[in-house]
Amino acid sequence: MGFTTLPMTLIYHTPLPREVLRAQNVPDDWPIGIADRVHFGDLDALQHVNNAAYLKWLENIRIQYFMDWGICRYQDGDPRMVLKALSIEYHKEMSLNEDYVLTARTVSFRNTSFTHEYGVFCGDLRVSARAVIVMMQPDGSGKMALPEDVKRRFVEIDGAEAG
Amino acid sequence: MGFTTLPMTLIYHTPLPREVLRAQNVPDDWPIGIADRVHFGDLDALQHVNNAAYLKWLENIRIQYFMDWGICRYQDGDPRMVLKALSIEYHKEMSLNEDYVLTARTVSFRNTSFTHEYGVFCGDLRVSARAVIVMMQPDGSGKMALPEDVKRRFVEIDGAEAG
Amino acid sequence: MGFTTLPMTLIYHTPLPREVLRAQNVPDDWPIGIADRVHFGDLDALQHVNNAAYLKWLENIRIQYFMDWGICRYQDGDPRMVLKALSIEYHKEMSLNEDYVLTARTVSFRNTSFTHEYGVFCGDLRVSARAVIVMMQPDGSGKMALPEDVKRRFVEIDGAEAG
Amino acid sequence: MGFTTLPMTLIYHTPLPREVLRAQNVPDDWPIGIADRVHFGDLDALQHVNNAAYLKWLENIRIQYFMDWGICRYQDGDPRMVLKALSIEYHKEMSLNEDYVLTARTVSFRNTSFTHEYGVFCGDLRVSARAVIVMMQPDGSGKMALPEDVKRRFVEIDGAEAG
Repeated sequence: MGFTTLPMTLIYHTPLPREVLRAQNVPDDWPIGIADRVHFGDLDALQHVNNAAYLKWLENIRIQYFMDWGICRYQDGDPRMVLKALSIEYHKEMSLNEDYVLTARTVSFRNTSFTHEYGVFCGDLRVSARAVIVMMQPDGSGKMALPEDVKRRFVEIDGAEAG
Repeated sequence: MGFTTLPMTLIYHTPLPREVLRAQNVPDDWPIGIADRVHFGDLDALQHVNNAAYLKWLENIRIQYFMDWGICRYQDGDPRMVLKALSIEYHKEMSLNEDYVLTARTVSFRNTSFTHEYGVFCGDLRVSARAVIVMMQPDGSGKMALPEDVKRRFVEIDGAEAG
Repeated sequence: MGFTTLPMTLIYHTPLPREVLRAQNVPDDWPIGIADRVHFGDLDALQHVNNAAYLKWLENIRIQYFMDWGICRYQDGDPRMVLKALSIEYHKEMSLNEDYVLTARTVSFRNTSFTHEYGVFCGDLRVSARAVIVMMQPDGSGKMALPEDVKRRFVEIDGAEAG
Repeated sequence: MGFTTLPMTLIYHTPLPREVLRAQNVPDDWPIGIADRVHFGDLDALQHVNNAAYLKWLENIRIQYFMDWGICRYQDGDPRMVLKALSIEYHKEMSLNEDYVLTARTVSFRNTSFTHEYGVFCGDLRVSARAVIVMMQPDGSGKMALPEDVKRRFVEIDGAEAG
């Protein structure tokens, strides 16, 4: 296990400008990218980032995306966003103190659900993932139609396809 | 949020006998099932089990399976088991203090890798998942062939298919 | 890192009878003891149980204690239990798959608060801890007096002192 | 539960300059302060930051402090830093997306151990904590004397007292 105190090269927890994303090798078809750093608690006994820790990272950008796209602000009366399925590929292990960029985008949507994709970039692509998310009534009693402006944002900003 | 102190009905952390698995509605094609209980720390702010917490549960049974099937005991010189991909479906939410049974089985294998399946049962099937796992040299330097007796166990106990 | 699949010797997640607690070297002045096992996710990169993981264990027995003593069942309208301070001593490290017994007791109480003590036993005492807990109104608007029957239980079962 | 997407006001994961610490109401007797943000995974079912999550935050600044002060870089052959005791006071609850500054300092030291203090600032002091840490041989076989330059740094930068 070896690491060094890196100089700060990224603004963390904040959507990065396109030129910074490009410098981190994030392709232009990702509409949002946010940086963070591997912490000690992300590692497991094998000294690499644990398989479940990545899901907490994806959760971080998913929530930020929901808020920025006006889907859900986690306030009273907001729709309830339910994860129905998730698949993840672990391309290359990550170690303590590595900086990474999380990306998210909607690739397709239907009336009440959409497919979300994620990337974890650290020079190269370390992890890619995909989730199916359903919008429910605030009390969870039934599904809820995606608002028109959200669907428009999926198409115009993310390049998502209806269907 | 409502729960009660349940009487102990299951032996936790220990492979359950077939008749107990059947009483929990676990189909007979699962070769191993181990019980645990939802803890407060498994919940997130929405008061259901968090999507990432299930991966820690799958890790628990995966490690027990590796040890019981003689694949890896996490001792010096043991092969390194690497998760390459995982997919998970969330069928129904879970709440504090619910008892559940984790199941695992190998459905197929190749020379150095295999496909592992998981279930989370709590009366009905709450979560199902599938992982691709590669066996690596202890120092991670390269892939490693699955031993013959492990492959035999995959076939004879789990009903896995070679290929 | 070395461990073996232990035979089940304890009933987990359930208050243990006195004779089982004694067999685990738990002194008789602990009114409740509940067993669990070290999981892979409790370990950190140094391969021992992480310092923060123990607080999740203490939380598990604290919640069970609150429910069993009739203090809080985490249902609507229940008082809100707030942790004000916690101190913990790490006597001896713990490793994967070790079985342990969590203990809890109230040692003293005032009108709206009490001091809770905890132990983690695994043959010997691995961790001891102490917390100050305040009972608040369900909406968190102010402190709430401990009910008489709870205070009586503190005295009669735990041997706690008023003051 | 209510929050908003805050504009980035802090540089995260990086020791902050004195004037930024002052603007965050961090007293000058803290030699190091590092910012981070409350994530969804820090919350528990009661929708505030969980009592154990703070210990992960303290771990983050402790490790950064160890590296910056030249105590341990978590490389082969480095001393093993062992937490013997920790006490924490929870002054005020924290919520999703709040920015905070973690601080650390050594207040006293002996031959092989030292007392470390921590703060969590978010406008005001939310959490304060104190730990006793022992320096062990890399193989954990025995205690290890603190190097002279580390002790000098404790005195000159942190204002720690020998004894």
